[in-house]
Amino acid sequence: MTAFNPALLATFAPPVMEARRWLNGVTFDVDRPLINVSQAAPVDPPPEGLRRAIAEAALSAPEAHLYGPVLGNQDLREEVALEFSRAYGGDVQAGQVAITQGCNQAFCAAIATLATAGDDVILPTPWYFNHKMWLDMQGIAAQPLRCKADMLPDPDEAAGMIGPKTRAIVLVSPNNPSGAEYPAELLDRFHDLARQRGIALIIDETYRDFDSREGAPHNLLTRPDRDDTLIQLYSFSKAYKLTGHRVGALLASTERMAQVEKFLDTVAISTSQLGQIGALWGMRNLRDWLAQERQEILSRRAATVAALQGLEGWKLKSAGAYFAWVEHPFAESSAALAPRLVREAGVLALPGTMFTPDSDPTGPRHFRLAFANVDAAGIEQLAARLAGFAA
Amino acid sequence: MTAFNPALLATFAPPVMEARRWLNGVTFDVDRPLINVSQAAPVDPPPEGLRRAIAEAALSAPEAHLYGPVLGNQDLREEVALEFSRAYGGDVQAGQVAITQGCNQAFCAAIATLATAGDDVILPTPWYFNHKMWLDMQGIAAQPLRCKADMLPDPDEAAGMIGPKTRAIVLVSPNNPSGAEYPAELLDRFHDLARQRGIALIIDETYRDFDSREGAPHNLLTRPDRDDTLIQLYSFSKAYKLTGHRVGALLASTERMAQVEKFLDTVAISTSQLGQIGALWGMRNLRDWLAQERQEILSRRAATVAALQGLEGWKLKSAGAYFAWVEHPFAESSAALAPRLVREAGVLALPGTMFTPDSDPTGPRHFRLAFANVDAAGIEQLAARLAGFAA
Repeated sequence: MTAFNPALLATFAPPVMEARRWLNGVTFDVDRPLINVSQAAPVDPPPEGLRRAIAEAALSAPEAHLYGPVLGNQDLREEVALEFSRAYGGDVQAGQVAITQGCNQAFCAAIATLATAGDDVILPTPWYFNHKMWLDMQGIAAQPLRCKADMLPDPDEAAGMIGPKTRAIVLVSPNNPSGAEYPAELLDRFHDLARQRGIALIIDETYRDFDSREGAPHNLLTRPDRDDTLIQLYSFSKAYKLTGHRVGALLASTERMAQVEKFLDTVAISTSQLGQIGALWGMRNLRDWLAQERQEILSRRAATVAALQGLEGWKLKSAGAYFAWVEHPFAESSAALAPRLVREAGVLALPGTMFTPDSDPTGPRHFRLAFANVDAAGIEQLAARLAGFAA
Repeated sequence: MTAFNPALLATFAPPVMEARRWLNGVTFDVDRPLINVSQAAPVDPPPEGLRRAIAEAALSAPEAHLYGPVLGNQDLREEVALEFSRAYGGDVQAGQVAITQGCNQAFCAAIATLATAGDDVILPTPWYFNHKMWLDMQGIAAQPLRCKADMLPDPDEAAGMIGPKTRAIVLVSPNNPSGAEYPAELLDRFHDLARQRGIALIIDETYRDFDSREGAPHNLLTRPDRDDTLIQLYSFSKAYKLTGHRVGALLASTERMAQVEKFLDTVAISTSQLGQIGALWGMRNLRDWLAQERQEILSRRAATVAALQGLEGWKLKSAGAYFAWVEHPFAESSAALAPRLVREAGVLALPGTMFTPDSDPTGPRHFRLAFANVDAAGIEQLAARLAGFAA
């Protein structure tokens, strides 16, 4: 009998796939279709111009079908460096940017450069489950740092958790699953802490394009001491509706890039050329379109906040980017309620337990609502269905 | 000072990227261009029909831009199951196939299901360097099993190397870097050994489409006892010239698939949709075209064998698929000769040292020649340049 890797066996199954299985055998009336607030994924394809750019490259650019450089195409790396320099007021070079097969892979690469089995990493909870899964299967302990009532983690508390095996603190802002937007000052404090203690600060900014704040959300890229400490992650999937192409990015020091290159060469060789071509076209041509998309998401956020605030017993903890984090009024755990929500309310949402360790009592009390795919009328409907749901 | 993961630091840099750097600052005469036999990568794009299939999907199929299932699109999984059932005479179900972002990632996924830091895996040498790199960065020891003069590994020798921490034997057939085609009977013996000792047998069949043998290259898929032992890896990159799309496959038991799914969800989420669409179109429409491609590669192999056999002092050890493994006549190490070959002979080839552990005296004596991209005239030229090269 061939044994399995115990670290992988101990890793939980992909939550999004599990949630999909709750839909099996459930039918929905035509006039009361499923409201799916489970996944943070665009449901529409990218704009026609971007689709045409990809199609033209597929037909006429031979290199679109051939291996690219391990760290990504030079033109896309330069464009990302330019955009991050512009948006954050820092000086980012193309050599400090790697293109990855999606932002999950950027996280895996970042961790690979920092930690090995037996080490630990501080992860605020509720966490993004794929982060926890990668740490589990790598034999790296995730140290849960529970967010406060405002859904923000406390750097002083983190300071007390750093031990000799701690290699990094991982933040997600705007946050998945809570939607919380981390204040610039808070990020500065985490950077100070990480730098002082000789560990890395990883910031996953997958949802940066939907931040409600105008201007730079933080000043970390202007810090002269960032090189050794800061690793930023980004995704093209949400901004340009490119989820099916798998394109993300990692920003770090050029010294770290040499290590990132080893990891990516082995796991990926290179990122899909058509995906990179699409991402570059988007960055160069869709600035105004993306600004409108952001406005639409912000208006959905406002609608969600309004609808949930009127909902008896439910409590909105935070909202931003694609997500709201809400407390439900029932005694039952969200893990048990979630499949029933599908059958009885026609709502698919992920339970808080998917984002927290088993020992955390807040997981069973909460749901993540990924409202970004639901328009204003749908958000009204969502609130009405939650109001009518009885445990 | 933020520390680096020592396992990644200890991993060598991507050899193909290193070899490219030997070209820096070297110019080649127009009438004596570089002969690049370094990488096993098609230099032409896929046939027009396949390019058009991808372009049309990009324009008109919305789902081509959205997340797909973690284990791959159902239609492509079914087509791979059908093809492997047909080609090997076994019964493969779609649920036993995973689609990955290239075959390197399939290897990473296979190892992830089997081994953790502190374990070991038996790797015949010369090995494929990306396999060694992944094991290194995972803290898994690669146990080198040196191939015999015929470039085949010996199962009896492997038997003596299996210890309590050994989790798998990895074979590549047709082999990279040697080109050797492993006899069916040899693979059976390795399967017997692995099964008997409760470890896995991974067979990387990236180059199966260019095997010189007619019919099934092995009978492992017909064995009723294969489920627990056998893991097969495949790449669409070489057959359909899709290197830039990153599409590979992993075949294993459905039980193992549940573990593979966790790994892929975390590292990839899903494989590029356009890549999968292209691979499926290729499997369904390019059978005759691929048969001709194979004939062309086989004729290049024959030309390479003929040209090298006439080369004073050089010794051809094996050849097959894209590769020849040759011994050079010089006292110097191939590692030192390789950059000089670029400058003095206009030939870029990877030294044997890139495929062997430092302790192996055969590495410095050999080169891998990836002849697949060079036509008959070019192969004549290659031999002439090697003949004229003096150490």
